[in-house]
Amino acid sequence: MLLRLSTLFVRTLRENPADAEVASHRLLLRAGYIRRAAPGIYTWLPLGLRVLAKVEAVVREEMQSAGAQEVHFPALLPREPYEATHRWTEYGPNLFRLKDRKDADYLLAPTHEEMFTLLVKDLYGSYKDLPVTLFQVQTKYRDEARPRAGLIRGREFVMKDAYSFDVDEDGLELSYQRQRDAYERIFQRLGLDYVIVAATSGAMGGSRSEEFLSPASIGEDTFVRSPGGYAANVEAVVTPVPDVVDHADAPAAHVEDTPDTPTIDTLVAFANETHPRADGVPWTAADTLKNVVLAVTHPDGEREIVAVGLPGDREVDLKRLEAALTPSVAEPATEADLRTRPELVKGYIGPGVLGRANTGDEKAVRYLLDPRVVEGTRWITGADVAGRHVFDLVAGRDFVGDGTIEAAEVRAGDPAPDGSGPLELARGIEIGHIFQLGRKYAEALGLKVLDVNGKQVTVTMGSYGIGVTRALAAIAEANHDDKGLAWPVQVAPAHVHVVATGKDPAVFEAAESLASALSLRGMEVLFDDRPKVAPGAKFADAELLGVPLVVVVGRGVVDGLVEVRPRAGGETAEVAIVDAVDHISELVEQL
Amino acid sequence: MLLRLSTLFVRTLRENPADAEVASHRLLLRAGYIRRAAPGIYTWLPLGLRVLAKVEAVVREEMQSAGAQEVHFPALLPREPYEATHRWTEYGPNLFRLKDRKDADYLLAPTHEEMFTLLVKDLYGSYKDLPVTLFQVQTKYRDEARPRAGLIRGREFVMKDAYSFDVDEDGLELSYQRQRDAYERIFQRLGLDYVIVAATSGAMGGSRSEEFLSPASIGEDTFVRSPGGYAANVEAVVTPVPDVVDHADAPAAHVEDTPDTPTIDTLVAFANETHPRADGVPWTAADTLKNVVLAVTHPDGEREIVAVGLPGDREVDLKRLEAALTPSVAEPATEADLRTRPELVKGYIGPGVLGRANTGDEKAVRYLLDPRVVEGTRWITGADVAGRHVFDLVAGRDFVGDGTIEAAEVRAGDPAPDGSGPLELARGIEIGHIFQLGRKYAEALGLKVLDVNGKQVTVTMGSYGIGVTRALAAIAEANHDDKGLAWPVQVAPAHVHVVATGKDPAVFEAAESLASALSLRGMEVLFDDRPKVAPGAKFADAELLGVPLVVVVGRGVVDGLVEVRPRAGGETAEVAIVDAVDHISELVEQL
Repeated sequence: MLLRLSTLFVRTLRENPADAEVASHRLLLRAGYIRRAAPGIYTWLPLGLRVLAKVEAVVREEMQSAGAQEVHFPALLPREPYEATHRWTEYGPNLFRLKDRKDADYLLAPTHEEMFTLLVKDLYGSYKDLPVTLFQVQTKYRDEARPRAGLIRGREFVMKDAYSFDVDEDGLELSYQRQRDAYERIFQRLGLDYVIVAATSGAMGGSRSEEFLSPASIGEDTFVRSPGGYAANVEAVVTPVPDVVDHADAPAAHVEDTPDTPTIDTLVAFANETHPRADGVPWTAADTLKNVVLAVTHPDGEREIVAVGLPGDREVDLKRLEAALTPSVAEPATEADLRTRPELVKGYIGPGVLGRANTGDEKAVRYLLDPRVVEGTRWITGADVAGRHVFDLVAGRDFVGDGTIEAAEVRAGDPAPDGSGPLELARGIEIGHIFQLGRKYAEALGLKVLDVNGKQVTVTMGSYGIGVTRALAAIAEANHDDKGLAWPVQVAPAHVHVVATGKDPAVFEAAESLASALSLRGMEVLFDDRPKVAPGAKFADAELLGVPLVVVVGRGVVDGLVEVRPRAGGETAEVAIVDAVDHISELVEQL
Repeated sequence: MLLRLSTLFVRTLRENPADAEVASHRLLLRAGYIRRAAPGIYTWLPLGLRVLAKVEAVVREEMQSAGAQEVHFPALLPREPYEATHRWTEYGPNLFRLKDRKDADYLLAPTHEEMFTLLVKDLYGSYKDLPVTLFQVQTKYRDEARPRAGLIRGREFVMKDAYSFDVDEDGLELSYQRQRDAYERIFQRLGLDYVIVAATSGAMGGSRSEEFLSPASIGEDTFVRSPGGYAANVEAVVTPVPDVVDHADAPAAHVEDTPDTPTIDTLVAFANETHPRADGVPWTAADTLKNVVLAVTHPDGEREIVAVGLPGDREVDLKRLEAALTPSVAEPATEADLRTRPELVKGYIGPGVLGRANTGDEKAVRYLLDPRVVEGTRWITGADVAGRHVFDLVAGRDFVGDGTIEAAEVRAGDPAPDGSGPLELARGIEIGHIFQLGRKYAEALGLKVLDVNGKQVTVTMGSYGIGVTRALAAIAEANHDDKGLAWPVQVAPAHVHVVATGKDPAVFEAAESLASALSLRGMEVLFDDRPKVAPGAKFADAELLGVPLVVVVGRGVVDGLVEVRPRAGGETAEVAIVDAVDHISELVEQL
């Protein structure tokens, strides 16, 4: 395979494109791999398409060797199946919806659980047909609020989605593990570092899920790791519950005037000044109980006011909150929301008016507590009167919640749930996500089979996604320097980039022969045969394009020599042109 | 490659699915190659996807060897480029339109002329960059009014679309010819009979176009052929213009009472009875001039009343009319339309009130004549008064039109435009369509390059489409019998279908060994290893699935024999099992 730069449909950009802040995005644009067609929607140029095809091929091969069978669903789908599972509404504005000429509702599918479920229901009817795992490599659509970072968060993208169907939990566990193993092989073959983290299921539903993250500072996902091997997406981190505190000696709660303490900091300073702790230890923000009021919109459209109580040294993490409440959606309560609840005194809200269990009032604001607010803990918190706070308010004695919620931010140094030490925080790009869905979709769509006793049983499912275009971006993100891309050989658009420099026809002839010979030896060759481009520009393009081996054919030809440079670093070598094919072939093998 | 029917995700249907009237549609459904997801929208099951991948591979290879470079555009596109070329409106209800969360207009692309034009404009700027031909294999969307025949007229389908860019007409001609040659190679390799016919350009615009039709009685396109080799889509047939008739001796036109002659037939009968021709030859419908009133909607929304004059023995062909008027759209005038034109007396409309050139009235109904209405021809036609017709009305002497129109039906036996004899009519499936677009898109979107003199010139383009999924259906249509499909080997989902019959474990072991051996020899093997399916059902499935060679392993195994049956016909042979791999391998080579 020999591609000539003189005719190849590609133009590199010297300047960084505006709005491309992430390296993979910037370099894929500059190197002419992709072009933007609309926000979050990209066109693939020839070199980009070659890389994409290689990534897809790896995914396909490993799916097949994991026993998954390939099918292909439409992207344009009718509303009804997504209505049956409530996802037509639950997906909210992320779903592209449209009408056909007969005014029937359609959508551009974000994932295909419903359609796979219906297809298996259509074809299969017995436990003997199972297990089966199906997959597709297909174009998906999500109307992201903030498409960003090029291919990393797009609105039209390629995904590999697979779905497993089993009669029972043991089968699901096996199918899940088989996909999980295939994912490990895929990311290893793609040369991608990955971390497998516990995750939340989000709109997908189901009982267990894990994400494959490619560690990257520009990643959108924050995850935690512990020295003992615990790893979780920050949304899925479970706060270790502290032991109950003995509060037999705790003083009775007492309300105090706390003028001019609108913030936690001013309150803590005031408390230390006027009501120092008996043991002399200063109060800190962690001793205060912050009550955050939220407006939660439920899938049925109801808007509910909810309060979350958490230690005053922590913020609410909106992503964790969202994961905890899904499919309901939360936002900070507005002034209008607060006016509907006159008992809430802004800046001084406390358990005195919050909670149904607490106040015995079924109409009270629902009150959810951070897991750290265990029985016996003592708090300074609002007294529900402007300018007043209550001290020594003891959880379990003086107030209770209506439940707990994982909404507080996770911080580096927090204890790991497995007790193995402090958590470390890092960021990553979500390149895969696997779910044990259980029976949510099969129940909603009536997918049952006859079991071994001739009884109808509902099938249990898994769903397994890889963001194919996103994985490509993650590879670019992990394999670049300030001069350009540096592809791993297994996905590079070519193996060797031959550059002919200068104007000497003898040099061009030698380069032409070498490029042909390499191609005949089975290597994929990109040949810079452009007659009027300066050597500097050619070298810059080679560095930008990122083919793993760069072979420079220049004046050295008179001495029978060419230069071989590994793009990703390593030594530049002068090689005798007569040995060049063998030598380069060996280097490609070793890459 | 070895696929086992015991685990393959496929179920054949014994019964014909409702609403599947066309053989390819019916058999692709019954054999479990595709499933319907919505009207005109299909899901590909594993065997169907294998065939589709093979068809795509042939298309890709021939595009590449014709020098076209592959890219890939999004399906979801912003409105603006299609607005610039007016196609946003001209496509009418065939276009799927939608809005994103910010209320911006998007469409699902039916073809990509605009985007390719903009991409080349983005990358290229000089005549030195040209010519270039780009292509993609991509999913397209058209909201067809009447999706039918399965994959033949779908709403989501795979298309190969290519676009050429040249500085001048000679270049376009070469690029066009190169694609045309590639199309011939593609359809030959796919084993598809095809006819290349002159065609109209429709909404695409441009100066010249040809269609590749696969002859099939269920085809939607009617085309003509002449003994001399003229071939055209019926919409593109050019009526040979008869010689001018000497009308020196023609009598003056005379209006006659023609009571009770509301139809052409009653008028002809009445004329023969009361006003026989001087030469004794009876009047026929061909002597009458029928004036058909139409309402034409122009792209700007204006609704214009237009009359078409044609010989009374011919009907208006709505498809030819549509092609003649595109991008305007015509329909028969309604009663309401006619009320706006009180001069039109229904059943008696004639040139007395029609035509601007004719009446000298700029507000008169525009009057377009069939090409057969040449100077000197004499007609019986309406006198614009109820119950009266005019006789001996001579074209050119007594009336003229405002132009001619190709709207009359084409009939078998009509003279060919090349004078080579009578036209023959046939039907076909449009599998390819190539266009010399010229500068329509480049002008609308400003695609110019510097020419050799440093002057900006507008680029000239071609566009070249193959309906990939439709071509697959055309192959199925051309390769089936009443028992099922019979794929040509080059696109078949497997080369050999090994059937193990009966219950004898020795038979199954022999079949298993043979299937493995064939697979190891590089053949693609479908192996019916289902333990509890009766031989008759297995044979029926083999015939339905249509793999080219069926190998039956049954009781003959005790005598060391298996049976080899070519699916498409030919002799069934008993073959020694020890020679089977060699023998079958040879047969596959010969297919």
